[in-house]
Amino acid sequence: MSKMIDFQTDPSRYRHWKVVYDGPVAHLIMDVDEKGGLFDGYDLKLNSYDLGVDIELNDIVQRMRFEHPEVKVVVMKSGKDKVFCSGANIRMLGGAAHSHKVNFCKFTNETRNSYEAAAEDSGQNYIAAIRGACAGGGYELALACNHIMLTDDSISAVGLPEVPLLAVLPGTGGLTRVTDKRKVRRDLADVFCSIEEGVKGKRALEWSLVDEVIANSKFDDVVTERALEFAAKSKKPDVAKGISLGPLNRNISDRAVIYDLIEVELDRAGRTATITLKGPTEDAPADMAAFQAQGDQAYLLKLARELEDIILHLRANENELGLWIFKTVGDPEKFARHEALLTDNGDHWLANETLEYWKRTLKRVDVTSRSLAAFVEHGSCFVGVLAELLFAVDRTYMMEDEFEGDNRPMAAITLTSTNFGRLPMGNGISRLQTRFLAEPEHVETLKASIGTPLDAEAANAAGLVTMILDDIDWEDEVRIFIEERVAFSPDAMTGMEANLRFAGPETMETRIFGRLTAWQNWIFNRPNAVGKDGALQRYGTGVRGDYNMERV
Amino acid sequence: MSKMIDFQTDPSRYRHWKVVYDGPVAHLIMDVDEKGGLFDGYDLKLNSYDLGVDIELNDIVQRMRFEHPEVKVVVMKSGKDKVFCSGANIRMLGGAAHSHKVNFCKFTNETRNSYEAAAEDSGQNYIAAIRGACAGGGYELALACNHIMLTDDSISAVGLPEVPLLAVLPGTGGLTRVTDKRKVRRDLADVFCSIEEGVKGKRALEWSLVDEVIANSKFDDVVTERALEFAAKSKKPDVAKGISLGPLNRNISDRAVIYDLIEVELDRAGRTATITLKGPTEDAPADMAAFQAQGDQAYLLKLARELEDIILHLRANENELGLWIFKTVGDPEKFARHEALLTDNGDHWLANETLEYWKRTLKRVDVTSRSLAAFVEHGSCFVGVLAELLFAVDRTYMMEDEFEGDNRPMAAITLTSTNFGRLPMGNGISRLQTRFLAEPEHVETLKASIGTPLDAEAANAAGLVTMILDDIDWEDEVRIFIEERVAFSPDAMTGMEANLRFAGPETMETRIFGRLTAWQNWIFNRPNAVGKDGALQRYGTGVRGDYNMERV
Repeated sequence: MSKMIDFQTDPSRYRHWKVVYDGPVAHLIMDVDEKGGLFDGYDLKLNSYDLGVDIELNDIVQRMRFEHPEVKVVVMKSGKDKVFCSGANIRMLGGAAHSHKVNFCKFTNETRNSYEAAAEDSGQNYIAAIRGACAGGGYELALACNHIMLTDDSISAVGLPEVPLLAVLPGTGGLTRVTDKRKVRRDLADVFCSIEEGVKGKRALEWSLVDEVIANSKFDDVVTERALEFAAKSKKPDVAKGISLGPLNRNISDRAVIYDLIEVELDRAGRTATITLKGPTEDAPADMAAFQAQGDQAYLLKLARELEDIILHLRANENELGLWIFKTVGDPEKFARHEALLTDNGDHWLANETLEYWKRTLKRVDVTSRSLAAFVEHGSCFVGVLAELLFAVDRTYMMEDEFEGDNRPMAAITLTSTNFGRLPMGNGISRLQTRFLAEPEHVETLKASIGTPLDAEAANAAGLVTMILDDIDWEDEVRIFIEERVAFSPDAMTGMEANLRFAGPETMETRIFGRLTAWQNWIFNRPNAVGKDGALQRYGTGVRGDYNMERV
Repeated sequence: MSKMIDFQTDPSRYRHWKVVYDGPVAHLIMDVDEKGGLFDGYDLKLNSYDLGVDIELNDIVQRMRFEHPEVKVVVMKSGKDKVFCSGANIRMLGGAAHSHKVNFCKFTNETRNSYEAAAEDSGQNYIAAIRGACAGGGYELALACNHIMLTDDSISAVGLPEVPLLAVLPGTGGLTRVTDKRKVRRDLADVFCSIEEGVKGKRALEWSLVDEVIANSKFDDVVTERALEFAAKSKKPDVAKGISLGPLNRNISDRAVIYDLIEVELDRAGRTATITLKGPTEDAPADMAAFQAQGDQAYLLKLARELEDIILHLRANENELGLWIFKTVGDPEKFARHEALLTDNGDHWLANETLEYWKRTLKRVDVTSRSLAAFVEHGSCFVGVLAELLFAVDRTYMMEDEFEGDNRPMAAITLTSTNFGRLPMGNGISRLQTRFLAEPEHVETLKASIGTPLDAEAANAAGLVTMILDDIDWEDEVRIFIEERVAFSPDAMTGMEANLRFAGPETMETRIFGRLTAWQNWIFNRPNAVGKDGALQRYGTGVRGDYNMERV
């Protein structure tokens, strides 16, 4: 599995999903092309999925927000006769490297979180309309919907058979959503997760595994009825027309990835990717009508799209670049005006969607298993959403005072209103609140500096950066940090960062990425699952995995 | 490492710790005997520890509560000149099986949680007085104290060098307590956890790694002063005399473990341990004075001690018994009277300590990585703290109606006040609240049934059991359950149970056992740590681990 994985796609290229738009209701139909696997060696039978199927789903969920703002309800259903979705493809999982499995789960989790949150963030509510078998990752797709409807017939059932069949966990949020979203009684959840055949009809309803069970003959009618009901209840404003998301300008070479607004230098020997985000060249649009007219070329939308793409690209295709360094370059005041247009018009659908997109993209940064640093250099524009990167990374280094021969404007950080709650982390609080968990009152104090550029000394005094360095020390200190960081064990780094980044409250989201993912990763390393006689390898042979019976 | 590990010890056998009692202050001195390792193959240099050292510490912490109720402050210090504690012994970790490492971390975590909570639970506050190097597990010992004092000299420093030195995590709560107890800013925590040499003096104080930094010359005086201050502030009632905890009566054979009040059947072929707890034969003591006069023979205290011991014994010595089945036998009403004596006298120090001991012991059940079931049979006495076992296990089966040839009293469950908050789980809420997360009002309703024996039908209607079975179905259903359960992959079971058991809120404790432990277990499986060229194996050779640099 070494070909480049591309997260960019568009409807003309979909092989696995269809979307039928019907006013406020969109029908999202999963109809996986068996022969359309991302890699060779497996067929995507029974509406099972691999990363390629999920890349399309992610694209749909994203376009639904920008291209189809008229949609208030998305009904997820199957295009197959007897199966809703049978989950992640087992042969794919059995053949995939540990890193691919982990990365695959992370991306699918992010997609599920996105459409789960769409109702609250944007008034688009996802409903699962299940006819046929709905197992494993299939049921996890449904669990992330906010209303689950199940056909009452002899073949329709929901199930999480991973543990008995495959010796791995339902690792895409399944266990967490069963206990914490559906609040299924834990002993019933234990039974449910131990049976291969799933649970049907009334029992599924009694156990709270679904919200409605409907006779087959009435199913389509009730689904339609429910979709219209949900649409009527949506708080989403009526928007007639969205904007199109065209392809990104992107040039990938062995040493760099170049977009219009982001340039990434890949240092393979140094195991580092340096990601430089550019400030706007043009002034901000006059109003949201002008922003909307710019469409996908609007600066802050385009920047978010490029940032998301580079995150996904580096995660999937550049496993050995263990340290990402974020830099910015540009005019801070001009950037601030672009951002202010969105924050001043928060009730405009496109301003809201663009800020929500930044929220999702910054959350991707938080859960990226790479060491993350930011360098606040002279000439940079760490303002608002870009300053937020400083609080997402593990460490920040900032230039202090003048550097010889450097006539760029002095490094500064400017906080804006977006740093105070508009872009919460998965734990539900802002990155500044997480950072200053010991002194919540300090976060309040910082609000006084909104809009004021803080130089190195001020930023350091305010606790916004890890270290400030002058011309004499900068180069050596920064070099030593990089060399040291990329020499540490990658696994220890991943574990350490996953623990240090999420102080404070826990949410379903942090539990999925923290607790559930960690256990799944552990199991993905154990011979009982992935060894040659483990359950994943033996699946389909009719022979059960040969387990070492020691409990650990 | 196959010799039996015994968790029972007493002060006459300590090799690694000394305790000096001085009225309300106890001085707990770590002075590890290098040659006193639990296994061969390593020396416990520099006050490093292995499980044997921790078994003594656990014993001390426990006796402090029962034998020394006069103690209000425990000062943890070192008996060595230049080192406070250098953490878990690396050669021991390098040589230990995965299961031993995991089990070792779990037990040490439980001990740290116990003394951390002692201030709140019982008014005994632990202070760390650090002179010399305090690294890794050594600093984690200090982090679990509620006040950390550090000598200001050239050698005294606190550090978590696991990541850079060993490629594993500070897995005994270190990362979690740094971010969530000490609330260290996350980028400073990142720096702190990346440097081998630790942090000294004023910087340790500035970063909130310690509470006080004191000049060497004044250190002992200030520690004494602080200890007396804390003692004066303790809410603990003055108690002149504790009770002695004598050795348990215990007989271990290949097929059974027999205590006075607990009998355990070990079915190796069936990979099951059946743990039967016996109700009291004598009636309850008349009052707490009579209870105290019975000392360690008081029924509910003795039962808790035996239960704790069998949990620890089975965890450490019987890894392949993947399913524990809890049963009880006895007179429910008599049991209820024993328990009522304690709950009616909650402000008596020994009643409080005994209930707190049940709380700790039940928490050990919650985090045990074995499948857990309870069988409520005719003749059983699942009342109060014993009924709590039903809500701690993964599933409960209960006998319904008469069984042919069985003239024991019909199976019943009796809730008491202890089921409604006196014995919270690690997540801070009761097991019933966790069980009925979807319907908190149901928990309130259940209070009306306190003291009323609920037969199978009533218990089932109340959601207290997983399944009720009559004479016709019991044997088959129970057999099928057992056979199926022990056939599943042990790793998948561990991961599934760790996720399903802890719905609801998260606390530092659940984060340590859920998130941190899972990541640590993952890393404990990765070649970068444990492979032949990994950091744990190479430690001490002067050659760094040879890492696969792929980030996962």
